[in-house]
Amino acid sequence: MPAASRIVSEVDFTRDGKQHGYLRLFHSVHASAYGFIPIPVVVIRNGEGPTALFVAGNHGDEYEGQVALANLARRLDPARIRGRVILLPAANLPAAVAGRRTSPLDEGNLNRSFPGDPDGTVTQQIAYYIEHALVPLADLVCDLHSGGSSLMYLPSAQLPGYRPDGSSAPGIAALKAFAAENAYIVEANQGGDRTLAGACARAGVLSLGTEAGGAGHVTAVALRMVERGVVNLLVHLGILPESDRIAAPTPTRYLEVGGAEYYVYAPDNGLYEPLAELGESVMSGQPAARIHFPETPWAEPVMVPFLHKGIVLCKRMPGRTMRGDCLFHLGTEVAV
Amino acid sequence: MPAASRIVSEVDFTRDGKQHGYLRLFHSVHASAYGFIPIPVVVIRNGEGPTALFVAGNHGDEYEGQVALANLARRLDPARIRGRVILLPAANLPAAVAGRRTSPLDEGNLNRSFPGDPDGTVTQQIAYYIEHALVPLADLVCDLHSGGSSLMYLPSAQLPGYRPDGSSAPGIAALKAFAAENAYIVEANQGGDRTLAGACARAGVLSLGTEAGGAGHVTAVALRMVERGVVNLLVHLGILPESDRIAAPTPTRYLEVGGAEYYVYAPDNGLYEPLAELGESVMSGQPAARIHFPETPWAEPVMVPFLHKGIVLCKRMPGRTMRGDCLFHLGTEVAV
Amino acid sequence: MPAASRIVSEVDFTRDGKQHGYLRLFHSVHASAYGFIPIPVVVIRNGEGPTALFVAGNHGDEYEGQVALANLARRLDPARIRGRVILLPAANLPAAVAGRRTSPLDEGNLNRSFPGDPDGTVTQQIAYYIEHALVPLADLVCDLHSGGSSLMYLPSAQLPGYRPDGSSAPGIAALKAFAAENAYIVEANQGGDRTLAGACARAGVLSLGTEAGGAGHVTAVALRMVERGVVNLLVHLGILPESDRIAAPTPTRYLEVGGAEYYVYAPDNGLYEPLAELGESVMSGQPAARIHFPETPWAEPVMVPFLHKGIVLCKRMPGRTMRGDCLFHLGTEVAV
Amino acid sequence: MPAASRIVSEVDFTRDGKQHGYLRLFHSVHASAYGFIPIPVVVIRNGEGPTALFVAGNHGDEYEGQVALANLARRLDPARIRGRVILLPAANLPAAVAGRRTSPLDEGNLNRSFPGDPDGTVTQQIAYYIEHALVPLADLVCDLHSGGSSLMYLPSAQLPGYRPDGSSAPGIAALKAFAAENAYIVEANQGGDRTLAGACARAGVLSLGTEAGGAGHVTAVALRMVERGVVNLLVHLGILPESDRIAAPTPTRYLEVGGAEYYVYAPDNGLYEPLAELGESVMSGQPAARIHFPETPWAEPVMVPFLHKGIVLCKRMPGRTMRGDCLFHLGTEVAV
Amino acid sequence: MPAASRIVSEVDFTRDGKQHGYLRLFHSVHASAYGFIPIPVVVIRNGEGPTALFVAGNHGDEYEGQVALANLARRLDPARIRGRVILLPAANLPAAVAGRRTSPLDEGNLNRSFPGDPDGTVTQQIAYYIEHALVPLADLVCDLHSGGSSLMYLPSAQLPGYRPDGSSAPGIAALKAFAAENAYIVEANQGGDRTLAGACARAGVLSLGTEAGGAGHVTAVALRMVERGVVNLLVHLGILPESDRIAAPTPTRYLEVGGAEYYVYAPDNGLYEPLAELGESVMSGQPAARIHFPETPWAEPVMVPFLHKGIVLCKRMPGRTMRGDCLFHLGTEVAV
Amino acid sequence: MPAASRIVSEVDFTRDGKQHGYLRLFHSVHASAYGFIPIPVVVIRNGEGPTALFVAGNHGDEYEGQVALANLARRLDPARIRGRVILLPAANLPAAVAGRRTSPLDEGNLNRSFPGDPDGTVTQQIAYYIEHALVPLADLVCDLHSGGSSLMYLPSAQLPGYRPDGSSAPGIAALKAFAAENAYIVEANQGGDRTLAGACARAGVLSLGTEAGGAGHVTAVALRMVERGVVNLLVHLGILPESDRIAAPTPTRYLEVGGAEYYVYAPDNGLYEPLAELGESVMSGQPAARIHFPETPWAEPVMVPFLHKGIVLCKRMPGRTMRGDCLFHLGTEVAV
Repeated sequence: MPAASRIVSEVDFTRDGKQHGYLRLFHSVHASAYGFIPIPVVVIRNGEGPTALFVAGNHGDEYEGQVALANLARRLDPARIRGRVILLPAANLPAAVAGRRTSPLDEGNLNRSFPGDPDGTVTQQIAYYIEHALVPLADLVCDLHSGGSSLMYLPSAQLPGYRPDGSSAPGIAALKAFAAENAYIVEANQGGDRTLAGACARAGVLSLGTEAGGAGHVTAVALRMVERGVVNLLVHLGILPESDRIAAPTPTRYLEVGGAEYYVYAPDNGLYEPLAELGESVMSGQPAARIHFPETPWAEPVMVPFLHKGIVLCKRMPGRTMRGDCLFHLGTEVAV
Repeated sequence: MPAASRIVSEVDFTRDGKQHGYLRLFHSVHASAYGFIPIPVVVIRNGEGPTALFVAGNHGDEYEGQVALANLARRLDPARIRGRVILLPAANLPAAVAGRRTSPLDEGNLNRSFPGDPDGTVTQQIAYYIEHALVPLADLVCDLHSGGSSLMYLPSAQLPGYRPDGSSAPGIAALKAFAAENAYIVEANQGGDRTLAGACARAGVLSLGTEAGGAGHVTAVALRMVERGVVNLLVHLGILPESDRIAAPTPTRYLEVGGAEYYVYAPDNGLYEPLAELGESVMSGQPAARIHFPETPWAEPVMVPFLHKGIVLCKRMPGRTMRGDCLFHLGTEVAV
Repeated sequence: MPAASRIVSEVDFTRDGKQHGYLRLFHSVHASAYGFIPIPVVVIRNGEGPTALFVAGNHGDEYEGQVALANLARRLDPARIRGRVILLPAANLPAAVAGRRTSPLDEGNLNRSFPGDPDGTVTQQIAYYIEHALVPLADLVCDLHSGGSSLMYLPSAQLPGYRPDGSSAPGIAALKAFAAENAYIVEANQGGDRTLAGACARAGVLSLGTEAGGAGHVTAVALRMVERGVVNLLVHLGILPESDRIAAPTPTRYLEVGGAEYYVYAPDNGLYEPLAELGESVMSGQPAARIHFPETPWAEPVMVPFLHKGIVLCKRMPGRTMRGDCLFHLGTEVAV
Repeated sequence: MPAASRIVSEVDFTRDGKQHGYLRLFHSVHASAYGFIPIPVVVIRNGEGPTALFVAGNHGDEYEGQVALANLARRLDPARIRGRVILLPAANLPAAVAGRRTSPLDEGNLNRSFPGDPDGTVTQQIAYYIEHALVPLADLVCDLHSGGSSLMYLPSAQLPGYRPDGSSAPGIAALKAFAAENAYIVEANQGGDRTLAGACARAGVLSLGTEAGGAGHVTAVALRMVERGVVNLLVHLGILPESDRIAAPTPTRYLEVGGAEYYVYAPDNGLYEPLAELGESVMSGQPAARIHFPETPWAEPVMVPFLHKGIVLCKRMPGRTMRGDCLFHLGTEVAV
Repeated sequence: MPAASRIVSEVDFTRDGKQHGYLRLFHSVHASAYGFIPIPVVVIRNGEGPTALFVAGNHGDEYEGQVALANLARRLDPARIRGRVILLPAANLPAAVAGRRTSPLDEGNLNRSFPGDPDGTVTQQIAYYIEHALVPLADLVCDLHSGGSSLMYLPSAQLPGYRPDGSSAPGIAALKAFAAENAYIVEANQGGDRTLAGACARAGVLSLGTEAGGAGHVTAVALRMVERGVVNLLVHLGILPESDRIAAPTPTRYLEVGGAEYYVYAPDNGLYEPLAELGESVMSGQPAARIHFPETPWAEPVMVPFLHKGIVLCKRMPGRTMRGDCLFHLGTEVAV
Repeated sequence: MPAASRIVSEVDFTRDGKQHGYLRLFHSVHASAYGFIPIPVVVIRNGEGPTALFVAGNHGDEYEGQVALANLARRLDPARIRGRVILLPAANLPAAVAGRRTSPLDEGNLNRSFPGDPDGTVTQQIAYYIEHALVPLADLVCDLHSGGSSLMYLPSAQLPGYRPDGSSAPGIAALKAFAAENAYIVEANQGGDRTLAGACARAGVLSLGTEAGGAGHVTAVALRMVERGVVNLLVHLGILPESDRIAAPTPTRYLEVGGAEYYVYAPDNGLYEPLAELGESVMSGQPAARIHFPETPWAEPVMVPFLHKGIVLCKRMPGRTMRGDCLFHLGTEVAV
């Protein structure tokens, strides 16, 4: 049996009604010897039924999920549901408050920290609690990401851990229920088994998520996609009634993300000029970007090509880039 | 007579042909006792004629101008011009290399540092050199800004220091020549007399500029606007022949930016959800943004209204915001 | 005529009633190109009459005045006063929010920054605004200090710039009105003419203040002293009616702080053990402190004596000390 | 068998007489490729007999124990004792020299780092050495804490790991021998099994300690309590003769610290005004503190109540506070 | 079976010819969510035969090996060799680019990080890849060190893990082949089993290395020694033909480094004046250094003696020193 | 009349005998509200006569002068001298303690801070005091530099401000008296009128100095040169008797440092391999250095030539270099 997490919850996950409070992560530091880091949690329960766990702020600078879950926390009427909804709108709280992907306390990337450590850094303790105390309560986990400060996504739902052997049917069904404009499937997402999706796979709990927008902004269209999907998943699970389902504005387009050749990386340090836009169809060999050198403006820029055909699903945004930065990744249409 | 700048130029501004080199700003620090900061400069000259000075990287994280001037530095054939073109594609070099608005060496904002100080910080020394050694050489100065990491602009040309008494006619003519989709005039831009525009006003040299895009990205449409405008200004001055003029895709729309009521500021620290888009026409009192609190998701967000009607010319991008941050500013259409 | 401050006030100092808002100190930085630092200000006015200006948070880690002025800002009824009260409860706002003596933005010590600079650092801009825009409005300025993070004071009112030639009579009268348990007079306080007291002296405006407690804490007895004194000064000026006067629990003891021999300084880096307590009467040559060396515990500690007799008015609190730190200063009783 | 620590001691723990030297913790860093961190250690031995291990500087900003052990290191005559005394006056040396709770090298809190790691961070290596090399030598371990920079305690001896089944009798006897004015028992102290007390429990070695004072100061009364208790424990163990016992000024009052309701936490970020003093008896529901907002002084402060009755044993000192900071904890009188 | 490294190589170690590319160490951070750290690697292969692995930049501020391997990477003709040469010229890339012993990303000292961790810090991931993916490919590993920023060595080849039982004969043979002016043998080098040498010992792979120069400089004589030795090792292994062997300018002198008494450490913080030079023969008790105190210049400096006779093999260079810094280490001549 | 410095001296420069103490530079910061920075000063006086001011630690990482003046401070017998010797062995104390060229408090380079500012940063206050309080007391000022952390000099005495019109005769005479192995003259040294030499020129006080060694080390031969020269200057002034003069081991070689072509600068960021040694005679066009790129080891290094013939007087030491760093400077022999 794994060791117990040292985090103490102020809410009782077995009680009916709506409760909110903090997960108390005790953190004994110079400025506060006996203090805790207060990670907000909301639980809404009405009798027996399935449990949905929604997580945002896994990366602190991915915002649409944080807004959507805060809105849901205030609006969701326990009387209207059957079962249980657990909301963790700012999972890596120190990162969320700082507006950073990673925690300012330990530089931890929560979605590279699973299965975590009950005696590790703050971020590792959060991962451990989610994996060992929250995931086991859930029938479905939905992890609401955006591209973060460095990337922008075509707003998409995402099914990680996809296997083409039919075993992913429940995931595909949930993905369809989400009703995003775009949805993509991937065998292993970035971070692999160190992610919350990896934790769910270890526990045998169905999980899906989003890559809603990014660049460290809140984008209206992405926020609408997330708010729609969250409600539709609750309907899909039978927690909310069918009448609450929200129709997608367009049929979902399904994409698949393949191997290394779907990605474009910066070959040098410099100033990155993108030559393709999100949603654009590109060909293998087509110019993807130029790297300029304003500190030596008389030097020729370096051209970087796409290595595969596909649709631009994800694009780096910040101008200055380092060798090895991901500039683009593609998806290719697929039937599911 | 003001003291001489301590910066030494590797190029001779009086020589014909194309030269490139560095402005040597000597900076005696722990890691390099006798070293200099190498600020790239290009001068292209062909006989007598007017002088145009183009500056980019005044803010290090505003990139379209940096790309446009690097491209121009490589492509402009001295045989084709009459007069002189001086290019400073990375004016605040340490900031440009760092991809930051301000210099990592002294936190200096170059466009709040004029008239500078020959014995001051690195940023103050750059300002001093530009004001006292470069501006006096020029008939027209064009300072190529974007919104920087925190703001995004509707790509625009800009005429600062506008006065409605007719004295701004040469500026209006240059603004028209620029052929941007949008152009705005303003009596005092942000930073007032501490900007490069302020330096030009003190020297009686015509100046204009851009707010091309922003959010710390390179945007294709904004880059096209900048590259077109730079060529058109050279044509306007007679440095390039008329046949080089590039037509605007649409007639220029002229806007004017008024006083404090054109601006929307964050009333509290939190997560900012914009409720209007760039280019949108808004009314006074219309909701502009909501500030959410994911660390207390059960708290109601705060609504922030517009205080004036107008067109959204500038919008804050990053999600996390502090009380006092500018979220939006407007422009109103004007005939020039 | 001095240049105008660039700070813009949201409140109108000439209007009757109670207003609150921010002094907008525009600060163009990477994270916020057009933002301002919002320094809270409250003005309460009822017709013609004298003006009192109360300042707290001059040092950000001196808290009793901040609490007292925030309480006053909420409680003071404009109908009850005659004249004007201006409250600046967090003058060096960035320092106050950080809980530090000095500003985290520029390491500026506001009370060593007068007369300030309208184009200088953030702290210098605040000093300039107070000296050039607020002090000239006032008949009396009261600057509410405590000892800050490093020092603890016997809670005291303080009259700086005392001269024994009778010219300080108005100050002495105000000091008496304050009704503190202890009050001290000093010809030049720490910081001399670079302080707010120096600004008042330059403007010929009466000023006094407190050293209320310290060690970076809020102390109940010191808070009571400050709240009593603030009301009593308003009565003294005729802004509040005589019936509001609060009696002192004990008659005020008056002390005088002399020259360098009133001070004890650390002779070495180490761990400081104080051998005297606040309020204690000490003799010249009496041991004041021992400096220990736990990193070499077998080394003898160094003894430090008092150099003058007197009452311990101020004492360093933090254990680790550096050569040159002030460990104590004394006062000697005086008739006023 | 656990791996050997990589730390090398300059002293021989089996030799008679008084030796001092350093524990050499090799730390290969940029500034010193082959250097060691010199942690001072003193061993005083005179033939066979019990061993007492005294530790201070477990938290670097808790000073009374550091002073007391340095004094003891110089004064204790080996001829006078029977058995062995081991002194570690600055256990987390980098933290002690920095005057911080945690190490500036790795942010490690030594008392949350047990059982440590021989190949881990500097702090983990110290924990490993103490647990695996020093604790096994001891019959009694006394860990001398104070409240540290953020907390102040009613000066107290402390017995952790108390069990009401009679098995704690040797601990109670040692606690009585200590002869503090106040002493408290607790089943699990802050940090639980990750503390030095946890290490002792794992090794079956009797341990107790102090919470002597705090706020990052050296307090005379707390220092006297520590110096008395250290001598009395040596007498209790038979290392010093009975004639050396120092009587307590008052009979010891015994307190017990219960569960979460004995603690008061800050509900928001702001400026903390305590409404109770150390040693005061309080009732459940009684106001404990107000949180003020000087950056918005017109906002009402937030009141925080005690949740249990008891005696104020521990109090936060710094004015600025964050949500989740411990403001107070209580004890209740108990017979032992 | 150990877990696979998460690092992906761009080169194929089994292919003939010369390839270069990067080891992709994926590092998901705020500025680059999907980026990798590009560690350069070169593999040169020509059919079956032995494999030599050369590593430099294990410590980022040790440069001769970095220069030598970069030169070799460009010059070595695959047609000329038999077998395989793998070059890792900047093993701890972030440290090498920063010119620091340790990584700026995690403060990791690569040569204290073996066997590493596939999910650990960046430095631990590099160690894991080298130990688990590269060392098993090699017949001989040569790790090219210098003294780094803090130390200067008499340029030497080094054989770690020497045992006097004859089992080190292959190592001695390789050391002789290296043909350095000086060579030393040592049972356990600094860092012991946490070094790359430790990894080779665990894998049963022959390893040797250099301490070529140091002080953070590139030294001509040390660079020549390294370039000669690298070629000679390739000849020794039969990868290059015998005709490529480079003769040593002088016969190799062999030294042995013994225990703690071969080392001199700073007894206090201060300014270090060395009293012996590299290569000098010293006696036990001879003055090695003086520690001065310019902040108290009237205090006598502290003299530090050598504790053993020998030849000065290594000397600290930087003037300011801390207690515990290694100032010198010696070697004594030995027959091999 | 310039404003008085705010620094207070503990020593009386007019008193006979030997005194030592601190210049108290009051610095009111978070950790110490009323503390001072203690800059050590020694004055040795015996009746009327000339005054020599020796300064070291102007740059904190230049050590030979600091050692030499500390030794002199202890050894010089007031009875033996005529006149006055003032020693400032650690002029920029915070930099000297940190072992850095510039102050860790304000990044100030003292030798680029003259004439200073009595209300400026700590470094500016030190410059102001030296220029306005110490230089006016002196007949000769000797400023003892080395190359600092980034540069190594051929140990040399130096005469700045040399003019070939005969007016430098007293300086030449002092330079000859110094009896260094090498001495160079220069019209304007690095830093020009912002140096201590500039301060002396403004005051009409004779000044000279050294560039004794460097690389952040203490070098025996450089220390001997400095100790000899200091005594010989005192003899030259008549402060010490002629019998104390120390003969030079070799006749002084005189060099002259000309303009920009005497200097070699790095053309790119990379790893610097020097191709010439200190003291070597080089020709114009001869290779001076190669810049390598270990992060792309397959890229060709860049060769950098000397631009003038001469003797290598100064050489950069650290391996990693940035574009614009000075790699070498030359001198050419001259008759004086």
